[in-house]
Amino acid sequence: MSKVAVIMGSTSDMPVMQEAIEVLKGFDIEVEVDIVSAHRTPEKLFEFSKSAHTRGIKVIIAGAGGAAHLPGMVASLSPLPVIGVPVKSSNSIDGWDSVLSILQMPGGVPVATVALNGAKNAGILAAQILGSSDKCMLDKILVYKEGLKQKVIEGAKTIK
Amino acid sequence: MSKVAVIMGSTSDMPVMQEAIEVLKGFDIEVEVDIVSAHRTPEKLFEFSKSAHTRGIKVIIAGAGGAAHLPGMVASLSPLPVIGVPVKSSNSIDGWDSVLSILQMPGGVPVATVALNGAKNAGILAAQILGSSDKCMLDKILVYKEGLKQKVIEGAKTIK
Amino acid sequence: MSKVAVIMGSTSDMPVMQEAIEVLKGFDIEVEVDIVSAHRTPEKLFEFSKSAHTRGIKVIIAGAGGAAHLPGMVASLSPLPVIGVPVKSSNSIDGWDSVLSILQMPGGVPVATVALNGAKNAGILAAQILGSSDKCMLDKILVYKEGLKQKVIEGAKTIK
Amino acid sequence: MSKVAVIMGSTSDMPVMQEAIEVLKGFDIEVEVDIVSAHRTPEKLFEFSKSAHTRGIKVIIAGAGGAAHLPGMVASLSPLPVIGVPVKSSNSIDGWDSVLSILQMPGGVPVATVALNGAKNAGILAAQILGSSDKCMLDKILVYKEGLKQKVIEGAKTIK
Amino acid sequence: MSKVAVIMGSTSDMPVMQEAIEVLKGFDIEVEVDIVSAHRTPEKLFEFSKSAHTRGIKVIIAGAGGAAHLPGMVASLSPLPVIGVPVKSSNSIDGWDSVLSILQMPGGVPVATVALNGAKNAGILAAQILGSSDKCMLDKILVYKEGLKQKVIEGAKTIK
Amino acid sequence: MSKVAVIMGSTSDMPVMQEAIEVLKGFDIEVEVDIVSAHRTPEKLFEFSKSAHTRGIKVIIAGAGGAAHLPGMVASLSPLPVIGVPVKSSNSIDGWDSVLSILQMPGGVPVATVALNGAKNAGILAAQILGSSDKCMLDKILVYKEGLKQKVIEGAKTIK
Amino acid sequence: MSKVAVIMGSTSDMPVMQEAIEVLKGFDIEVEVDIVSAHRTPEKLFEFSKSAHTRGIKVIIAGAGGAAHLPGMVASLSPLPVIGVPVKSSNSIDGWDSVLSILQMPGGVPVATVALNGAKNAGILAAQILGSSDKCMLDKILVYKEGLKQKVIEGAKTIK
Amino acid sequence: MSKVAVIMGSTSDMPVMQEAIEVLKGFDIEVEVDIVSAHRTPEKLFEFSKSAHTRGIKVIIAGAGGAAHLPGMVASLSPLPVIGVPVKSSNSIDGWDSVLSILQMPGGVPVATVALNGAKNAGILAAQILGSSDKCMLDKILVYKEGLKQKVIEGAKTIK
Repeated sequence: MSKVAVIMGSTSDMPVMQEAIEVLKGFDIEVEVDIVSAHRTPEKLFEFSKSAHTRGIKVIIAGAGGAAHLPGMVASLSPLPVIGVPVKSSNSIDGWDSVLSILQMPGGVPVATVALNGAKNAGILAAQILGSSDKCMLDKILVYKEGLKQKVIEGAKTIK
Repeated sequence: MSKVAVIMGSTSDMPVMQEAIEVLKGFDIEVEVDIVSAHRTPEKLFEFSKSAHTRGIKVIIAGAGGAAHLPGMVASLSPLPVIGVPVKSSNSIDGWDSVLSILQMPGGVPVATVALNGAKNAGILAAQILGSSDKCMLDKILVYKEGLKQKVIEGAKTIK
Repeated sequence: MSKVAVIMGSTSDMPVMQEAIEVLKGFDIEVEVDIVSAHRTPEKLFEFSKSAHTRGIKVIIAGAGGAAHLPGMVASLSPLPVIGVPVKSSNSIDGWDSVLSILQMPGGVPVATVALNGAKNAGILAAQILGSSDKCMLDKILVYKEGLKQKVIEGAKTIK
Repeated sequence: MSKVAVIMGSTSDMPVMQEAIEVLKGFDIEVEVDIVSAHRTPEKLFEFSKSAHTRGIKVIIAGAGGAAHLPGMVASLSPLPVIGVPVKSSNSIDGWDSVLSILQMPGGVPVATVALNGAKNAGILAAQILGSSDKCMLDKILVYKEGLKQKVIEGAKTIK
Repeated sequence: MSKVAVIMGSTSDMPVMQEAIEVLKGFDIEVEVDIVSAHRTPEKLFEFSKSAHTRGIKVIIAGAGGAAHLPGMVASLSPLPVIGVPVKSSNSIDGWDSVLSILQMPGGVPVATVALNGAKNAGILAAQILGSSDKCMLDKILVYKEGLKQKVIEGAKTIK
Repeated sequence: MSKVAVIMGSTSDMPVMQEAIEVLKGFDIEVEVDIVSAHRTPEKLFEFSKSAHTRGIKVIIAGAGGAAHLPGMVASLSPLPVIGVPVKSSNSIDGWDSVLSILQMPGGVPVATVALNGAKNAGILAAQILGSSDKCMLDKILVYKEGLKQKVIEGAKTIK
Repeated sequence: MSKVAVIMGSTSDMPVMQEAIEVLKGFDIEVEVDIVSAHRTPEKLFEFSKSAHTRGIKVIIAGAGGAAHLPGMVASLSPLPVIGVPVKSSNSIDGWDSVLSILQMPGGVPVATVALNGAKNAGILAAQILGSSDKCMLDKILVYKEGLKQKVIEGAKTIK
Repeated sequence: MSKVAVIMGSTSDMPVMQEAIEVLKGFDIEVEVDIVSAHRTPEKLFEFSKSAHTRGIKVIIAGAGGAAHLPGMVASLSPLPVIGVPVKSSNSIDGWDSVLSILQMPGGVPVATVALNGAKNAGILAAQILGSSDKCMLDKILVYKEGLKQKVIEGAKTIK
């Protein structure tokens, strides 16, 4: 049974979105990956978004660049929490276009936006959402955060 | 008679979009007006966009604010030229969000973007598009442009 | 019964954050409201964030303006999903400061950022997060989305 | 007989504008290409713009960078629809200058602006404008859009 | 006697541009004022710009808002120094559009740009340009600068 | 006895922050260097900030990138002057995020912000703060400034 | 007794800069207030800056708007720590001009920049700089920070 | 023979400023080149600016990057027209800092600002300022502009 879906507008978003997939696998979360383009495959967007919550998916991570409509349109069609990853694509205006296209959703249809190219954080946020109702996952998050801390402490030692 | 559709994401966009309707009526172009929200009525968006060219509509003008996905999603679904009007809505970040969400479309799916709150120009552009294949409309555009010139010349007189 | 905490950096954020509280109450979600300032009450920030998940809180909504450190610091200290609301405060540089301070979190510590002043969407997103593991809440979301649609359809009628 | 004119301010814009030419040729549209600089050949700008609609041209695509005045000045002088392509030139301030110089036209004189370096979309938009009154071209657009979809679907397969 | 021309794209720019006229009159410089719209009266733009240096005009001040092409187009057509005043018009994106449209001229065709709504400084700069070859005007500038200093010194007294 | 602490959010900030350390050593100021991450080691942040002024530290320099909360949180917890260095990190939006996250502190809790990647100036500023009550250090600053001047004068000679 | 100088470019900056003066007086710090314009009284700027450290002044707070050169020029001429307050003046481009003119100082000449209109924080920072070598002042800062905390805690009570 | 001074804040600005020198020499204008740093050699700035108009200099071109105070401070001290060249230096925030620091001068003290890195245009503008009172120079400008036109016409031929 799938838990978190990771979709993106184009195969060219894969290098960025890969980080979300890896983080999710590190938390032993089942991942479903697909290319869904809001602008080129609108019917697939509809089918995917309308059915996701009926197929056992709990959280949707959607990454897109430029005038990034994918996360917002999925959020329009699905009752699930949607995490949007602004991807800095080639002709982007420094990433501002994807950030604002995903973040500035109108009242009624939220997208949980993470940092530019922040796919890793999208994965962690998805785990936290699952952990919100799953004690075991919450514990994994606590362990993960402890690991972050240890890495900084190791780094601090090398500097002295 | 050619038809131009003027749609917008919310009734709150009407004060801005009204200018497009008035310009079009000034050119004796039949106008169809509707509220179509990409985020709140995605099914209506689909039906409208898929059928527009089969109902005699020649050009679609779509206005929206914030993370403005309406023009781009209509352009995704319709083969007609889509003119996007970025609307400066209340919680907009100075209009940058709607401008970039409409302008920065990916390769393959253009939106003809006009200035922030530039609904009047959207109407004129729609008339120009019709005029591109309609000698009578082209003449109206020439007359319209002559009118712009005369108004400036009148203004110049008042200043001296 | 699940609890969502709504905290903010200052009482001056209340007019914006009130919208989150109202949406949550509309979904019959128990809400805990508090003022927690990252910069003026850092000890309270620590206590609140460290203990939230042990007190039955499932999601934290944190709103702040300017150099808005509250959502990110709560996310640093709590394993729960944290939703950040950038508030456009008086001396803000058009809201860019709070948006970027909340959104651009480093890898490892996500904040689910919503639009500038988007407290309403923060409330809905919290409900969606609860709904991700709670069929009854998910149904409420579906009903809520249906309501959004009906309101647009009503609006469309008034225009014709 | 020419159908679409593709002009640009400098030969250095050619690598970007080439994409418009290729798309138009792919639609079997006759293309007229020229260098017309608003700032260095203003007389040529006048002659070109004043006569374009009398020489069988239906749509003008104009690309320029920096303080990009070419598209707007052509729109000032010609009754035809003008598509503006903001080109990210070498000393541009991240492309913002060309985007705003082309997009923010005053009421009365629209330019149909596409994305930064979006010459490909300018070509497609020109085809859509022709298709608006030409059933055969409209069908080609529908086929083109189907092709976009198939490419995404192929891409999606490689990922699984 | 030297003449400075003060032109603007629209009568609505007059409240801003008035400051340039007043400063010039304060320096006893003959001023010619006109409305010349790059987009609505391109022929007048041509005639004005081509003939200005033959009619005793020494400096041209041009003010415009939005996609402000007037200063750059005058600079394209006239050999005289052109001072551009970015005007913050009603639908401007915070003035960035007029600033960048005037400032970012391509190599070969400069516009001497002053601050947003900086018509007063445009007038002073024109006087300085005349003063560069006119000892009497240079002395007036020195007196003017002494006056600026005295006003600050007076202001400083009121504060203590 | 330590005088100035130089801390940063990550070892990846070291190449930038190294310049502060070098400048301080050039002024014979004792430097304490550490990695303290606001988001990954919040407890260390607390301990460091609460105790710094009790351990002989006079000024704290804190560098961080992205949503840079370190300088502001240290300023929240310590009574000492805190100098913030916005670091342009890899996924930064052109450095705007770190600049605004550090600069736009709310009333009550200042951070003395220097330029993007301006660690060198942070070091000089720390020396100036010490010099404000230490005649010997003030003299060193005067010598340092004289050195800056000489270097420019040398450079000017090479150009002639 | 230590002295802090509060200077500003124009009497129109007084409403903003007043907050710095009040905070300093609240800390019983002697304040010297003056109008010094970098652009209109450059000689006064020189005299003030060159002599400040010889007259018992320990910290200089300088506020200015637009192309704000005052703080940087004072920092160029004085060995004392200079705190810059970007003031959002009337024709400012949203404050960006004063922020960047003050913040982005070149290597060698730092300005301790605070938030837009952040004069209050400039005052506190000056007190902290004095406190860095003055145990009594440091204690006042600790008390001040405790007061900030209490006010938030009071505010929190009113909300519950 | 008229002289134009070309000064810059640092030898590192030379590659950009060289273009101004070359253009001026192409117009047979005598050029004086120097390094004058507003922040590191303020006394030299004073001497240079105060005396320039007494040494036969007619126009001053000043280039600087970051918080670029050189052009504005020269304009503060000299009655001559000052042309400011914003230089995109290494730690610049995309050039915005130098552009705004030079452009947004307060009322009373103009700087004739050209495009980012637009030293070539600064040279042409200086020639135009001289040409404003020198028929021979004006003719050279007319010839120069004709040359620009011919180059575009040649370029247009290569494309066909």
